[in-house]
Amino acid sequence: MRRSQALKIVGSAQPRLDGKEKVTGKATYTSDIELPGMAYGKILRSSFPHARLVRIDTHKAERLPGVITVLTREDVNGFKLFGAAYKDQPVVAIDKVRYVGDPVAAVAAVDEATANEALTLIEAEYEELPAVTTIEEALKPNAPLVHEAASTSGELHGYHYEPPKEFKGTNICYRFSYAKGDIVEGFKKAGHIFEDTFTFGRVQHYSMEPHATIAQVEGDRLTLWASTQDPFTLREHLAEIFDVPLNKVRIIVPYVGGGYGGKLSVKTEPLVAALSWKARRPVKVTHSVEESFKTVTRHPARFRLKTGVGRDGRLIARECEIYMETGAYADAGPRVTQKAGYRALGPYRIPHVRTDAYTVYTNTVPAGAFRGFGTLQVTWAYESQMDIIAERMGIDALDFRLKNLLKKGEEYTPGDTPVDCDLKEGLLRAAKAIGWKRKSNKPNRGKGLSCCMKDGGGTYKIASAVVKMTPDGSIFLLTGTVEIGQGARTALSQVVAEELGVRLDRVTVSQLDTDATPYDPATNASSSMVVMGLCVQRAAQDVKRQLLRAAAKPLKDRVDRLSLRNGRVYNRKGQSVSYEEVMTKYFGAKAGEIIGRGSYQDKKSPKAVLGSPTTFWEISWGGVEVEVDPDTGEIKILKYVSLADVGKAIHPVQCKGQDEGAVMFAIGHTLLEEMVYKDGQLLNPNLIDYRVPSFKDLPQKFETILFENHNGPGPYGSKGMGEGGLLPVASAIGNAVYNAVGVRMYDLPLTPEKVWRALEKR
Amino acid sequence: MRRSQALKIVGSAQPRLDGKEKVTGKATYTSDIELPGMAYGKILRSSFPHARLVRIDTHKAERLPGVITVLTREDVNGFKLFGAAYKDQPVVAIDKVRYVGDPVAAVAAVDEATANEALTLIEAEYEELPAVTTIEEALKPNAPLVHEAASTSGELHGYHYEPPKEFKGTNICYRFSYAKGDIVEGFKKAGHIFEDTFTFGRVQHYSMEPHATIAQVEGDRLTLWASTQDPFTLREHLAEIFDVPLNKVRIIVPYVGGGYGGKLSVKTEPLVAALSWKARRPVKVTHSVEESFKTVTRHPARFRLKTGVGRDGRLIARECEIYMETGAYADAGPRVTQKAGYRALGPYRIPHVRTDAYTVYTNTVPAGAFRGFGTLQVTWAYESQMDIIAERMGIDALDFRLKNLLKKGEEYTPGDTPVDCDLKEGLLRAAKAIGWKRKSNKPNRGKGLSCCMKDGGGTYKIASAVVKMTPDGSIFLLTGTVEIGQGARTALSQVVAEELGVRLDRVTVSQLDTDATPYDPATNASSSMVVMGLCVQRAAQDVKRQLLRAAAKPLKDRVDRLSLRNGRVYNRKGQSVSYEEVMTKYFGAKAGEIIGRGSYQDKKSPKAVLGSPTTFWEISWGGVEVEVDPDTGEIKILKYVSLADVGKAIHPVQCKGQDEGAVMFAIGHTLLEEMVYKDGQLLNPNLIDYRVPSFKDLPQKFETILFENHNGPGPYGSKGMGEGGLLPVASAIGNAVYNAVGVRMYDLPLTPEKVWRALEKR
Repeated sequence: MRRSQALKIVGSAQPRLDGKEKVTGKATYTSDIELPGMAYGKILRSSFPHARLVRIDTHKAERLPGVITVLTREDVNGFKLFGAAYKDQPVVAIDKVRYVGDPVAAVAAVDEATANEALTLIEAEYEELPAVTTIEEALKPNAPLVHEAASTSGELHGYHYEPPKEFKGTNICYRFSYAKGDIVEGFKKAGHIFEDTFTFGRVQHYSMEPHATIAQVEGDRLTLWASTQDPFTLREHLAEIFDVPLNKVRIIVPYVGGGYGGKLSVKTEPLVAALSWKARRPVKVTHSVEESFKTVTRHPARFRLKTGVGRDGRLIARECEIYMETGAYADAGPRVTQKAGYRALGPYRIPHVRTDAYTVYTNTVPAGAFRGFGTLQVTWAYESQMDIIAERMGIDALDFRLKNLLKKGEEYTPGDTPVDCDLKEGLLRAAKAIGWKRKSNKPNRGKGLSCCMKDGGGTYKIASAVVKMTPDGSIFLLTGTVEIGQGARTALSQVVAEELGVRLDRVTVSQLDTDATPYDPATNASSSMVVMGLCVQRAAQDVKRQLLRAAAKPLKDRVDRLSLRNGRVYNRKGQSVSYEEVMTKYFGAKAGEIIGRGSYQDKKSPKAVLGSPTTFWEISWGGVEVEVDPDTGEIKILKYVSLADVGKAIHPVQCKGQDEGAVMFAIGHTLLEEMVYKDGQLLNPNLIDYRVPSFKDLPQKFETILFENHNGPGPYGSKGMGEGGLLPVASAIGNAVYNAVGVRMYDLPLTPEKVWRALEKR
Repeated sequence: MRRSQALKIVGSAQPRLDGKEKVTGKATYTSDIELPGMAYGKILRSSFPHARLVRIDTHKAERLPGVITVLTREDVNGFKLFGAAYKDQPVVAIDKVRYVGDPVAAVAAVDEATANEALTLIEAEYEELPAVTTIEEALKPNAPLVHEAASTSGELHGYHYEPPKEFKGTNICYRFSYAKGDIVEGFKKAGHIFEDTFTFGRVQHYSMEPHATIAQVEGDRLTLWASTQDPFTLREHLAEIFDVPLNKVRIIVPYVGGGYGGKLSVKTEPLVAALSWKARRPVKVTHSVEESFKTVTRHPARFRLKTGVGRDGRLIARECEIYMETGAYADAGPRVTQKAGYRALGPYRIPHVRTDAYTVYTNTVPAGAFRGFGTLQVTWAYESQMDIIAERMGIDALDFRLKNLLKKGEEYTPGDTPVDCDLKEGLLRAAKAIGWKRKSNKPNRGKGLSCCMKDGGGTYKIASAVVKMTPDGSIFLLTGTVEIGQGARTALSQVVAEELGVRLDRVTVSQLDTDATPYDPATNASSSMVVMGLCVQRAAQDVKRQLLRAAAKPLKDRVDRLSLRNGRVYNRKGQSVSYEEVMTKYFGAKAGEIIGRGSYQDKKSPKAVLGSPTTFWEISWGGVEVEVDPDTGEIKILKYVSLADVGKAIHPVQCKGQDEGAVMFAIGHTLLEEMVYKDGQLLNPNLIDYRVPSFKDLPQKFETILFENHNGPGPYGSKGMGEGGLLPVASAIGNAVYNAVGVRMYDLPLTPEKVWRALEKR
């Protein structure tokens, strides 16, 4: 931390390194890449939610001129099943299909039109099976099973996931339980007990860039260009599926147009790789928006929240039962469920707790990682219930929260990192910004507050970075963090430029290529600024040490008396030499490069509930004022205030952009978005019937406050951010709706119809 | 050095890592790459050897449908001149053209045919100037000047080159002089003085792959895919030409189909970059064979060699005057000249020496680096003269050499590395192999010997490598050495595999990309096995240290008691863990990578004539038996024996392949190849009129002996090799021809016509 020293590059709104490329349309995404001899792939997907695959005949498709090959279950015998947590997903359907959209076959052809035509010529014969398409159906006794055989257990980054034995022969594939104190005693002590059930709908990531993959098999090596958030983890999955060592798989990541968790672990990449292998040439597969909707979603969830409160207004006990619907394949479901269960306490002190969180298979699109990773669902429940309790107990919702918030330095659970921020101060700032104490002065208007917290930085991270200084002092940064639109290239380069005293445009981020780039597990969990930020900072400091040692001779001074500034090394007498001069003298020529390494590794701890203490706490506060139209049920957001605990904003404008984006994302989830299933068919996998927020859905007033206390573990006291902003939105709006029109909403999204019906019932 | 320990991977003929790709035609060369929106460039070249460029009109060409842009001198005002030693070459001709082939303009079009058609529509008006196309013409008083203004001085890798002031207003652009002892005294003492003049013809590299470049300007960054031998040096040149920092230039090197020095430093790349910049899209320019002939050649040379010998047969004095014809632009001419001058003593003890070597501009194709780098020319002279002297003094040519050879450990010149091989032993082995003591038993047959030496490893090298071990123990190697057909990927990977105890196919070499790959100055001067070999070995050892530290805990043993074998770490009790287990335990997950660094840096020494002692001595011996057809003058090679001092053959089959290739190369130079100029026009820039050796030119018997004494500074006692094999060929053949038919040849190549004329004069 160098708070005392003036920062030059860090903390200011530097021009984005990828800005010009992106606004001029020159930035290369996976779908922009064309390889000589490349074929185009299309996927035949199941139109049944659940069926046995009886027969598949590809002869007609193969005979269509322009078709290169067709991939079916006949080809994938040697390939292993895959999945983020469990290995339950085949490259293409083998015995049965499990949801509408499940890949059944794939065609590689000379162009997309031919490939699409060939799909219509594939004859697939199915035997329909009864399907389960909701949590309720899936949990019924004797419900049809999505997976007859128990899925194998899974390891991911050192964590073990296993289907619970007692749920063998059911659709429950994972349970996370956590308890502290004595829940029975707790409820006995509590003067008031509140029990509510909330649901969170099914929403899709909708990245601007749908999933895209190009695969090329050359000799015994597989190369992928992929829109992925975790190329090294993808490499690991592919090596496992095809049973080759890791040095036989190469992942190159061009720019990625948004991911939000939807491009983590493994999706369509194995299919494209297998297709390329069979076609004996490069194959590109780009999803339509509809296909991405049929690839991954957020977990719909149902919560039963039972909270006991003392007569003094202190939280005493909470019992929480969570069902997360993970669809036809587990994907990251068990991990999301674990986090949802763990995070169900919220930022409050609750002595007696028991949570049980379940992952449930259904015959719907697989649900995986999604910005907020389980927390978003539980915050909707617990922060809505906080207002319910306050109102019923006659306490102001702000005061009720203030009374129960964890203090800075207090433990969330035993063994976890103590709370690293003053939650009260943040909440008071949010309340002030929304004018909590002034009641809304018009009818049908109301305000809401929410305060949320998640463990940030991801589970058990190990990462490295390399910084190379060239002979003229300009710099390359090798980092496994994916530039996914969040501005990581710029922010990480700022750290390098700051440490090495150069202008930002003297830093270039090398292409992300797993063959050459140092390891990073994933661009997820708001981890990049802390985990990769520290790697990058340490690598830059390693370069700095070497540069200073090289400069000591020409400057005739001790290393500890030298400093870097504007591309020059200075001694205390004010004499200086340029980096180019230092390097030229050191290497004896304008040649050579200095290579610096930096690493980061989370510590494991058996005392921590999740096995390792969180890297940092990602904390966010929201305040909102809404107006509800009593005739239509429409909710208008008059003002939204978002407060983000960023520690130190490396790039304040990008931080605000991230936070605004996060709020808008959650406004979509809260008011607009829902994937609608009927008879196992997804009715709205497109942007006409599935509405994401647009500019006209912006709050009328929108304020983002960066809460900077240099309290993060990242460079210069920074924390990760970008997920926090989502967390308070739904509950703040739900609470404001209640305060505006007196109806309590339990089920997202808060569509006009739902609100209108609630108003009618009032 | 681990001579005592059994080597598993090093020293055996492992399958080439690039073998399958290459024999199946899958290997990607620059010309195989296609980028979306790419244009194709063609170059308008001067058809005058020397002319003022009066006017250039591109209007008609620009109007041709399909033409994207035309690049002329109007566009290149802001660009600097370039060149390996001096900056004397423009991107396209500005004021005048200096040789037939000099680039005048370039067209980018939608395809090659359109670009070619557009070239015919460019109107260029010239004012012819008198030209000089031989060393003799160029040296005449008041000869036309190729460059009116003195070329600027040059720096390359810490060495300074400067046109001599006293030659201002002449075509001489560089002089290297070296003297030791007292040359006047020396010749006084000598009982016998011999003076001979030799010439070496103009030959071309003829790489199977002519020069190819793709350039893409994106924002403020230039990316090149290029068939280059020294991407980092090319990056430096391009950054200078376009005046941008090094982080704005990226060079990616696909497979390269031979280079032999012809793809060093900077050739057509700046033109392609400028064309892409003007066309605002990627541009590919691939040379025809003719264009590569008009881009770079070997230096034609003339030597006057005056050698004084004592009555006892010991060499006493040598005066050597060398003229190297560098063509219209200096390219590496001064550096080649320096080396030719320095290496003119040969492997012999000569107390009194004076050499003067000059670089001369002419209006012909620029001459640059070429396998052997000046040495090949001087060995032709000095090893021919050794036989002349021996014969005239009545001493056996072998005995004469043995009497004068430097001893192992003796200094070549003060301050240089002592001779690191037993020259006598090698020569005796070569003599034995060719059966020197048995005279040829048929008429018109004769044997010849030659023994040559060059300083190897290049001038002042600085390089690094990185080795990454993945979580399953497989490995990536990041090296700046270009795989140019020599097998460097395989040999360097063998070093990694050996050090880390894994199978060779567990090592993959990452794509060479200057953004990510550690610095290496060039794949030249037989340097890769020593300079990069040591970097690679040290990087692997750095990984090994980290791996052993990580293994100490699971194996419950001290690091110094652990060893690596077959992908496992063993303790002395025979217990073992796989690398994957070690990494998983160390990182707590199947995640993370170990990164190792290794570097190499030549030491500078003010005591050494060339500023730094040679890295190693590259030494070679040749023995040959020929038969000369007295009617046609045709030389038939009955047997050739090549002996190469390789220290330790990392990959014996590749070493033999390199050596055989080197001999064949030199057989071409000796018997067949010569670029013929008439009136400044190159008459034979194609493979019909310019003959390179084919299988039918193979010696009837061909023996390659690897002389392994572990005497090299490289890994396991290895030395660099691959140039040595060329050096003795011409002189051995020339000597054998004399012994066969009694005619002494002074001028290469030894075509039937020349030999026949010599026989006629006999």
